Formats: sequence, structure tokens, C-alpha cells
Amino acid sequence: MLGIDKQCDTFLYRQVIDLITENITAGTLLPGDRLPSLRKMSKTAGVSIPTVRQAYIELERQRRVESRPQSGFYVRHRAANDIVLPTRTATAAPAPLRCRPLMERVYDGVNRPDLVPLGIANPCMARPAAKTLHRTMKRIMARAEERSLGYASTLGEPSLRRQIAYHYLDTVGAPVEPGQICITNGGQEALLLATMAVASPGDVIAVETPTYHGMLELIDSLGMLAVEVETCPEEGVTLSELQRTLEDHPVKACMFSTTLGNPLGVTMPDEHRRELVELLQKHDVALIEDDVYGDLRFDAIRPVPAQFLGSKARVLTCGSFSKTAAPGYRIGWVVSDHHIDDIARLKRAISCSSGFLQQLTLADFLASGDYSRHLKSLRPVLRRNAERMSALVAEHFPAETRTSRPVGGSVLWLELPRQLDAERLFDDAIAAGISIAPGHIFSPCACYTNFIRLSFGHPWQASTENAIQWLGERVSQLAAGTNQDREH
Amino acid sequence: MLGIDKQCDTFLYRQVIDLITENITAGTLLPGDRLPSLRKMSKTAGVSIPTVRQAYIELERQRRVESRPQSGFYVRHRAANDIVLPTRTATAAPAPLRCRPLMERVYDGVNRPDLVPLGIANPCMARPAAKTLHRTMKRIMARAEERSLGYASTLGEPSLRRQIAYHYLDTVGAPVEPGQICITNGGQEALLLATMAVASPGDVIAVETPTYHGMLELIDSLGMLAVEVETCPEEGVTLSELQRTLEDHPVKACMFSTTLGNPLGVTMPDEHRRELVELLQKHDVALIEDDVYGDLRFDAIRPVPAQFLGSKARVLTCGSFSKTAAPGYRIGWVVSDHHIDDIARLKRAISCSSGFLQQLTLADFLASGDYSRHLKSLRPVLRRNAERMSALVAEHFPAETRTSRPVGGSVLWLELPRQLDAERLFDDAIAAGISIAPGHIFSPCACYTNFIRLSFGHPWQASTENAIQWLGERVSQLAAGTNQDREH
Repeated sequence: MLGIDKQCDTFLYRQVIDLITENITAGTLLPGDRLPSLRKMSKTAGVSIPTVRQAYIELERQRRVESRPQSGFYVRHRAANDIVLPTRTATAAPAPLRCRPLMERVYDGVNRPDLVPLGIANPCMARPAAKTLHRTMKRIMARAEERSLGYASTLGEPSLRRQIAYHYLDTVGAPVEPGQICITNGGQEALLLATMAVASPGDVIAVETPTYHGMLELIDSLGMLAVEVETCPEEGVTLSELQRTLEDHPVKACMFSTTLGNPLGVTMPDEHRRELVELLQKHDVALIEDDVYGDLRFDAIRPVPAQFLGSKARVLTCGSFSKTAAPGYRIGWVVSDHHIDDIARLKRAISCSSGFLQQLTLADFLASGDYSRHLKSLRPVLRRNAERMSALVAEHFPAETRTSRPVGGSVLWLELPRQLDAERLFDDAIAAGISIAPGHIFSPCACYTNFIRLSFGHPWQASTENAIQWLGERVSQLAAGTNQDREH
Repeated sequence: MLGIDKQCDTFLYRQVIDLITENITAGTLLPGDRLPSLRKMSKTAGVSIPTVRQAYIELERQRRVESRPQSGFYVRHRAANDIVLPTRTATAAPAPLRCRPLMERVYDGVNRPDLVPLGIANPCMARPAAKTLHRTMKRIMARAEERSLGYASTLGEPSLRRQIAYHYLDTVGAPVEPGQICITNGGQEALLLATMAVASPGDVIAVETPTYHGMLELIDSLGMLAVEVETCPEEGVTLSELQRTLEDHPVKACMFSTTLGNPLGVTMPDEHRRELVELLQKHDVALIEDDVYGDLRFDAIRPVPAQFLGSKARVLTCGSFSKTAAPGYRIGWVVSDHHIDDIARLKRAISCSSGFLQQLTLADFLASGDYSRHLKSLRPVLRRNAERMSALVAEHFPAETRTSRPVGGSVLWLELPRQLDAERLFDDAIAAGISIAPGHIFSPCACYTNFIRLSFGHPWQASTENAIQWLGERVSQLAAGTNQDREH
């Protein structure tokens, strides 16, 4: 069972890691099982004892296994059944989008108000924010009268751009010129403008894997190709892999989430961000930095966007109020030093300007401190939801299910038993009145077929709990059914 | 003076027309002057008498000249000094955008609140609409509470799509399925989505000449090329010229205004629309129909968009509330039968959805009849402004100035003395506190160098009158200065 393919060209210690991981995934090694001793593994695998030790330590770092003094290494128990391995896809070549029809069906589900909404990465619609925003907007309407119906300027209302700049200064100590900010129709248009500013049709854009499906649709719509880069749940994209991708393919830009990436929930450590921008500067590749979840760490620690790390790399940082306050306002922004003139030109050409009344309202919402207060009350709600959802998944899903450990944001990423088809689960869930996001849509080659993403961003209700229980049971049935099928 | 270039390959009668027109423009033939007799012209130009007669009749149809019984043809007087000739450009080949830096400067001017705003095609910010819209929005906020902060669906709020469909049924008797309508971030995003749905980077898009600069920027931003088609102030694009363009160039779509095109103000007659869609169907070329001014005819007659003429041509009709009610709401729409699924996919990829609160508010604004009432009060204001502006231009601008005769919308198009540089005038006007739109930006090859567009859509004020007087005087000075320069 423990045979190793010696033709494999990855590092020997990586082979040992893969071998153990596969056996854990397949259920051959169960939680509590002791790993083969260093000596035995060295012999079986034909690698040196220090190499095996290095692999076991890495597995421990990944929380796959734990070392027990004077006893050896053991598979960790269920409670720690996190997703910790770097994710990688079958192909590391630029690929067109394969899962569009399924995406259509996922969106049909998302737009249905009769479903339990676990399919959309939306934050809580906290009633206090609604009340405050409504009150603020009424004040603006009274104050600005018919002026508030007019066009905003192309780059956006100066008072809002000043408030966003101040928010960066306040939370991460970074000085931003309001003149480097362009207000957009939500975070998605921010990504669009940033992409159009630095790349052209036919160009290759590097993305994390798994990555936000909206990025994949955007890249595809612009006639560009996405290439996936191995992504580690602890650190984000693996820089050595990124370097290889940059060397192998004519990558024009990277579109990465630096904080709380969707769906994996990973936040790049500061040092990793620094190395990333240095690498990109060296290759003269732009970074389109998705930072829409930046304000939503449960611990309220705001990582510094790569934009502000002082590198000369071309970084275009995309933010939004859609995940924190008011999705329906459609207000986001791009920060860019190098490309702001291009962005202004593009913004004018594709949508003139963004909603004026909402910009004035949000400027007030930030200036008054209401936004900070709202975040303070939103984060604990999200954290509680995350804990409840993780606990319910642990209770109701099959034992081999692995999950991300959210430290912010509003989504949980689940790896289901390997044979399970998440598209089948998606169909069954829709029929049962539940929307989920199947893993397929988070990769251009639709490769996360046994993964799903669940959102905990909506107000928690009894129907949420019932839905998770139903999903867990259905996954167990499907997994058992699949196994039976295979045994016939 | 009346020599004809016999190498010219256009029809002979067209040569005669050009000859007379040039002499009128140059001031050689003044209003009231008698045209050379048919016989004399026949001899001078070396063409037959029937050909000269045909040319003179055409000139009469164009309101350049008038026939007096038993007397001959005379140059018409100043009061009728309309722009009537078909406009054409030096090149009829697809061309990249040449006037981008000037466009930037024009927008800088448009965005400055300290200038007299004659540079932007904005409707009156009628106070009654602001009051009603604000009241409606407050009601929505109270009714929909936090729901109104959420995402709208990709295609848009069903109640608004129903109201837009009903508005078409009500005003032009056309049945539209709400399912064929996608709500957009203003008319500009409607044009963007329509264009992306039917054409790809590198493709050629046919436009009127002169045409709305926003279309040219859009086409350029998408990596496409615009080709201009001769446009007649009475009928819109000349179909014979369009046919030639379709035969000579790989045109993928036409982007035309069918009603009150900007800046010329032309409305295509119904029969012409019919012939247009038949021609496009024959060539399998899509029509991106800009209809954002459709509700703004002074006579309240709503021409039927080409969309609804029963042809099987692929027509994508773009509308907006930006020119009629609330530019700052950023709410427009596309109607499409054939391409609505592509448009939904693209809408999701580029901006997810449009502002929800504004959609709910406008749905109510239409359903209550407030929108129709608002239009009824807006049209006479625009008509009065148009008349005032035309009268002031006639009074203060040099005699050879020719203007469009607006029958709706909010802009006046002026042809200034031939030698005048509208960019120079633009600079001088900005320095004097007035924003105008120089003709250059209405053609990819920047060829309307002696034209300007003035907007009468803003509330009329003493400063408006002073600005027009100032402009007229400055034009006279520049024209005189230029002539002096040439005499040196």
C-alpha cells in the first residue's frame, strides 16, 4: 500500500507527504493511527531517515499529524480535521473556463429567495447598519437636494475617496492619496477596471487555486486566460510555484486575494506579501489585489495590503462595501499609483461614474464613525456563525470531511469524500430548498469536484441548522452510495 | 471660382452640390444671393442642365437654397441657417481614437462645478423630480428595510423590468418580455454589455458621424475600431453609404442612435428604421441601438425603437434614466431578444448587478405615473431652453454659423466658420469660466474641428445667456483673427 512512484520529479520529502496524505484521505490511515516509524518509512519509501523526519515535521506543521514525545507521529483527530495541504490542480497551464453552465445554475439558485442561502458569500445584513445607512441617506437627500441626483465625477465623490484614504491610514497606517482612488460599481467593477488597465485580450492572468468564481468569469469575459498557482491554506500562493509559472507562461498580471481569500479563507503573512511583490516587481507583472474582505478578520487585525508595502511593484488594490455594509449600493474602489489615469479613462468609457447618493451616504457613514462601529458589531456575529457552522459540519458530515478554519469573512470551504460529486449534491440541495456553491466553479478546469463552499454570512436561523444537517446526511448517503456502486 | 475637379469620382450632381455648399460656407455666396442659372452652371461645371437642376432641387430639400417662381434659386436667409448637409469625414476606414487627450480635458471641464455647464448633455435637474424621487426612496427604505441594502439579481429587480416593459407598451405599443430586459449601471454600461455580447476585440463597429464621444471611448477601450458612416440631419445614417461600408469592411455591429442622436439631434424616420434593420439582417450585422433620448422629443411623440419593428435583425436597445430623471442613480437597461443570456453572463462578470434601492425607487416612480408626469413638465422646459439658445446663437455668432434644429433632447450642434479651431475656443472658454464640447471629440479622427456642441439641459440662468454671448463674440474674434492671419 505504501509504494512510492520513483519517477515523480518532486522533492523526495514531498513524496512522503503526499503518500501519507493520500492514505489519510482514503481512510487507510485513520485519526489516532500511528504513522510508520522513521526507520520503516525510510526503508519502504527508499529515502533517507532525515528526509522522512523532514516530511513528518511538515505534516505536523500542516496539522495533519501530531508528534507524541517518545512515541512517534500520529494522525490528528477529527476536531483538527482542517484543510492544510497546499491545493494544486491537474494542469498548471492557462485554461479557458469549463464550468460556465454550472455557474449559471449556481447563480439561479443564489437569486432564489425561497432557498436557504448558503451559496452566496454575503455578509450579515445587520439591521443596525441598515437603520444607520437609511438615516444617513435621508439626511443627505435633505441636504444635497437635487444635486444628489446628478452625475458623480468619474473618479468618484472626493469626500468618499478622502474617507477611504483615511480608513487605510487609520487601520494599517498607510498614507494613500485620495487622487489614487477610483470609486467603482462594487468590487467586481474594481477588478474589471484593474484588469483592463494592465492586460489585454489573449493575455494570461495568474490566480490562486481554488479562487473566487467571479474572477474566473471576469477573466473569461475579457478574452483572457487564467492560470492557476498552487495555494497553501496557511500562506496563500506558493511563491516557488508562482515563480515557475511566471517563467513558463507569459503572465501579464496576478489576481490574488491577500486577506481572507475566497473560498479558502487564507491570509498571506506580511513577509509572504513582501516576497510576493518583490517577485512580481522583478518580473514586471502587475498585482490585482482583491482586498474586499480586508475589514472582516474576526480578530479585527487589518493586514496591510500589498499596495502599501513600499515596493515599486505595480499593485492595484480592489476594495468594496459589498461584503461589509451594503451590497446593493454597488460601491467599491481601486487604489492605484501607476495606473490611475488609465483607470479613470476606462471607468468613463464603461460606466461613466458610480451612484452619487450612495457615495455621499457612505462618506458620511465613514466620517461619523458609524462604519467602524458597524464592523465592531458585525465581526463577532460572523465569528459565532463560523463556529456554529464548523461544529455542525463536524457533527453531521462524514468523518473524512475536511474544512477550512475561517479566521474572518463569511465562507467555509469543505473537502468531501473523494468520490463525491458536488454537482450532484448541489442539484439535490436545490431540490431540498438549499443553495450551496459546488467546488467546480472555483477553478477554470472545474477540478474541485468533491468540494463545496458554504456561506455563514446570513443571519443565523433554525433553517440554517436544518440545512447543514440535511447536507451532512445527504453527503453520507451519496458517499455510501458511491462506494456501493464501486463495489458492484 | 466655380471650377470643378473632374477627377472626382462622385456623381456629377453631387459635385455641383458640394461646389455651391462650399461657396456658401466660404461666404462667397451670401444669404439672398441668386445661384447661377441652370444654363450658366451647366456650362461652367461641364455637366448637363438636368443634372444641375437635380442638384439645385437637392439643395432646396436640404434647405440650403430656396426656389422663387419664375426667378431661380436663392441662398436661404440666416433664420434658416440650419445644418442640413449630410456629414461625412475624410476617411471612411476603421480608425483608432485620435482625440483622447482633448477628451480628457473636456471631462476635466465637465466635472468643474465653477464653470457654466454647456459641455455636458445633461437634462434639467427639475426640482419636482428630485422631490418626488427622494420621497419615493424614503418610502422604499421604510418598506424594504435592510432588504434594500442587499444585492439585486443579475438581470435586475423584476418590478422595474416590468415597468420598463410597460412603458414601451404604453408609449410605442410594443410588447416586451421583462425577461428580455437587463438593468445596467446607466446607459453607458448598457452600451458596453451590448457591444461585448455581439463583438470581440479587433472587430469593427460602424457609427454615425458625428457621434457621441462616449461610444468612441467605449469602442476604443474594448480594443475595437470605429468606422464612420455618412449621416444626414434629416434621416440619420445614409443607407447607401452604410451598405458600402458593410461591403468594404468586416463590420460586426452598428452603434446608432435612432432617436435624437447626440450631437446632431437626428431622429430616423420609421421607414428609414425599417430599411436599416432589413439591411442589417441581410448582412447579419447586429444593431446596438442607443435610445437614451427616446422620451425627450418636445412633441412627446415616441418613435418606435428599431427593436420593435418586427424584423429578425439582432437589435440590442439601450435605454437609461440618466437623461430623463436621475443621472446619479446609474440605472439604464438593455433590451435584447437574441442575446439576453450572453448579457446576463457578462453583467455578472463585470459588475454583478445594479443598485437595488434605486431600482426599487424607479419602479415605484414609473408605476405611480410620476415618471410620465415628470416628462410632461420636463419637455417644455427643454424646448424653451432650445429656443432661447438658438435665438442667442443667431444673435451673437457670426452670420455663417450653422446650427442643428433640436426637436428634443438637450444639445445644440454648431458649425462655426471653417477656419475656426474649436479646441482653441474650448481653451478660451474654460479660461472664461464656460465648459463646451469641441467637435473633435465626436469623431475618431477628430475631424469636426470647427464644430462645437452646447448643452441646454441645465436650468436656464443669466450666466447661460452671458456665456452664449461671450462665445459668439469670441468666435467672431477668432474667425476675424484667423482671416487676418491668412492674409498676412
